[in-house]
Amino acid sequence: MTSFKQKLSAAQRIEVKRQMDIYRQGVQDIIPPEDLEEKIAKSLIEERPLKIKLGLDPSAPDVHLGHTVVLNKMRQFQDNGHVIQLLIGDFTGKIGDPTGKSVARKQLTDEEVKTNAQTYFEQFGKVLDMEKVELHYNSKWLSKLNFEEVIHLAGQITVARLLERDDFDERIAMSKPISLHEFFYPLMQGYDSVVLESDIELGGTDQHFNILMGRHFQERFEKEKQVAILMPLIEGLDGVEKMSKSKNNYIGIDESPNEMFGKAMSIPDELMIKYFELVTDLSPEAVEKVKTELESGKMHPRDAKMLLGKTIVRMYHSEEAGEKAEQHFVTVFREGAAPEEIPEQQWEGEQQTGILDLLTALDLLPSKSEARKMIQNNGVKMDGKRVTDPQLTVEIKDGMVVQVGKRKFVRVALKH
Amino acid sequence: MTSFKQKLSAAQRIEVKRQMDIYRQGVQDIIPPEDLEEKIAKSLIEERPLKIKLGLDPSAPDVHLGHTVVLNKMRQFQDNGHVIQLLIGDFTGKIGDPTGKSVARKQLTDEEVKTNAQTYFEQFGKVLDMEKVELHYNSKWLSKLNFEEVIHLAGQITVARLLERDDFDERIAMSKPISLHEFFYPLMQGYDSVVLESDIELGGTDQHFNILMGRHFQERFEKEKQVAILMPLIEGLDGVEKMSKSKNNYIGIDESPNEMFGKAMSIPDELMIKYFELVTDLSPEAVEKVKTELESGKMHPRDAKMLLGKTIVRMYHSEEAGEKAEQHFVTVFREGAAPEEIPEQQWEGEQQTGILDLLTALDLLPSKSEARKMIQNNGVKMDGKRVTDPQLTVEIKDGMVVQVGKRKFVRVALKH
Repeated sequence: MTSFKQKLSAAQRIEVKRQMDIYRQGVQDIIPPEDLEEKIAKSLIEERPLKIKLGLDPSAPDVHLGHTVVLNKMRQFQDNGHVIQLLIGDFTGKIGDPTGKSVARKQLTDEEVKTNAQTYFEQFGKVLDMEKVELHYNSKWLSKLNFEEVIHLAGQITVARLLERDDFDERIAMSKPISLHEFFYPLMQGYDSVVLESDIELGGTDQHFNILMGRHFQERFEKEKQVAILMPLIEGLDGVEKMSKSKNNYIGIDESPNEMFGKAMSIPDELMIKYFELVTDLSPEAVEKVKTELESGKMHPRDAKMLLGKTIVRMYHSEEAGEKAEQHFVTVFREGAAPEEIPEQQWEGEQQTGILDLLTALDLLPSKSEARKMIQNNGVKMDGKRVTDPQLTVEIKDGMVVQVGKRKFVRVALKH
Repeated sequence: MTSFKQKLSAAQRIEVKRQMDIYRQGVQDIIPPEDLEEKIAKSLIEERPLKIKLGLDPSAPDVHLGHTVVLNKMRQFQDNGHVIQLLIGDFTGKIGDPTGKSVARKQLTDEEVKTNAQTYFEQFGKVLDMEKVELHYNSKWLSKLNFEEVIHLAGQITVARLLERDDFDERIAMSKPISLHEFFYPLMQGYDSVVLESDIELGGTDQHFNILMGRHFQERFEKEKQVAILMPLIEGLDGVEKMSKSKNNYIGIDESPNEMFGKAMSIPDELMIKYFELVTDLSPEAVEKVKTELESGKMHPRDAKMLLGKTIVRMYHSEEAGEKAEQHFVTVFREGAAPEEIPEQQWEGEQQTGILDLLTALDLLPSKSEARKMIQNNGVKMDGKRVTDPQLTVEIKDGMVVQVGKRKFVRVALKH
């Protein structure tokens, strides 16, 4: 095999190194790095961009900072002229759960898939240049495979190899059933890369196995093998679990400036630098400076966290919004007062209302049981006074302020 | 569930028992027997025949006595008015080996599948009434499944259940690779029973797992579950391995009377009764009588074996052919003389021919290396004289008799 690296001019060699340095920032793993170098070299010599694939689950389109770890990396490729392939895994979404056991894995309609893809598209626009993004739906090719082709695909992989995947391995060890169709999800992901002829696939470290399937199947189908770039998973606000919607420990990129800022302030101190590195656009040098000043005590952790919050708000809203969110936070939480701008809600219900009904009607809590729990945890205040009795009947007054947790306020307005 | 057995008249109850007694003869296992009774009861009350499925591999259509163990059982069902479903697994045959590793598992063309099915049909006619047999090809439904339907099918079974199959289990234990597509063969066999709505599936004990797949999938697809009837596997002429073409230890049902008879005589004594029970049409009482007389010494094992040989020849040729084959055997082997009727072959080759070329040209041995081995084992005679030198050059003479092993003779005829 001739190596493209050997054909590079001196200037091109510098360019390859420049790109490699950028792509290496913050990654957990590049498998294998020498293939990535070779692909960059090839793209320079052949003057064609690389194809960078990202697979997306069409059923959960709420984008949070956890996703942006990967999106920021994709943006770097895009800035260097490479092409992003967003792959909506709609074929899987349309199947639902064939065992009929999981209610969660319900079948999506074509309409839902399109709507969810649109949601992704709008949110990703905050990080990527969406005009230069290719959008693909894998149902386009997967739904056309017949049984013979599926068997041919299945013939390219061994059962032992599939059982190496951590979660399968664990379930076998614990005698938890694995339905045979589950073996097909990594196969599909791998076959998508064959069809898309992807050069690189990006994902979190939890996608290690599935992304390597792409390399495997491309090789079996005599295509050039993609490089796996695995990004670290970022812990959520709890500092323990991976950030995810289901754990409710996330900062959504569509959230309001005050919500974002407040959530950023609740991150455990020890995660701050990781957040700076993975979810902000600060340069490695700027992050290094924060790190040094924190260690030397020159910077107070609270101030570092305020910088983090302001930066995140700036990225997804504006410079000004960042300043305002900081000001809001200082007013409410540092000075213990109610914020200047409390959203107002018109009250059209009964004058006498149970506290649980009130909290849910004002959308401050999603259910009565959640509202009861919040009261029991001392998290509900009315006009600054703590509510302790979940059975309380409230006499609604105009201008009354209801507060849930540290950051949610509503001013009740009565019809006149 | 209402039981059909409870609705039976006294006469019908006797009929169920009569059929059960017949079907139980010589079987290894009925899973479960109570379902078989219930199905017979149902067929009497609803006046509809049961559907008895037998799956056939389209790649190896040579039928031998090993197959007849199952065919004889099917004949009993046919005699009681039930319907035979012969299922040619042509879908599998058309796929070949998707890993490309096995030369043996080559793809069959439509033409080959049809020819092989025809071969089965002709041979089965010696046991079954082929006018009352349904012939099915599973490519009819399997080739139409799309990926979504395949995934739905795969969703009905767990990986653990598939790994229970003995050969998979062993291969995992020995770290021998199992290609994922292999998991689909039991699935297909199971799904065939769903489509055919089979009441009973017959097979050798080596089909235990696959036939139970039929029950499993019928249940998952909300069909009435089939009963598995497993017949013992019969050892071949070597007395050790299962009778099969690849082991060359079989008696083909298309073989000549003399070949059949001779092979029957070579069976180890201890297998004789099993052969009487499983591959002859003698009644259980007649077999019992042979058994008792053998044990008491009233009958010589050689005579019992001659009865076996004669019976097999009668079944697949005629009463007369059985008598003649016996006579032939006595003449050749007991009296040490050449048989009366030696097949003649016209010789059109060189007058001076190497012995190895001669043996292969006369089709007495398949290759020169086999011919050399046979000479080294003292298995080749010319005009009654043993040949010891594989390099021997033979002067071909008209009427010369060439003999290989105990039973193969050719008389060479020269052109005049």
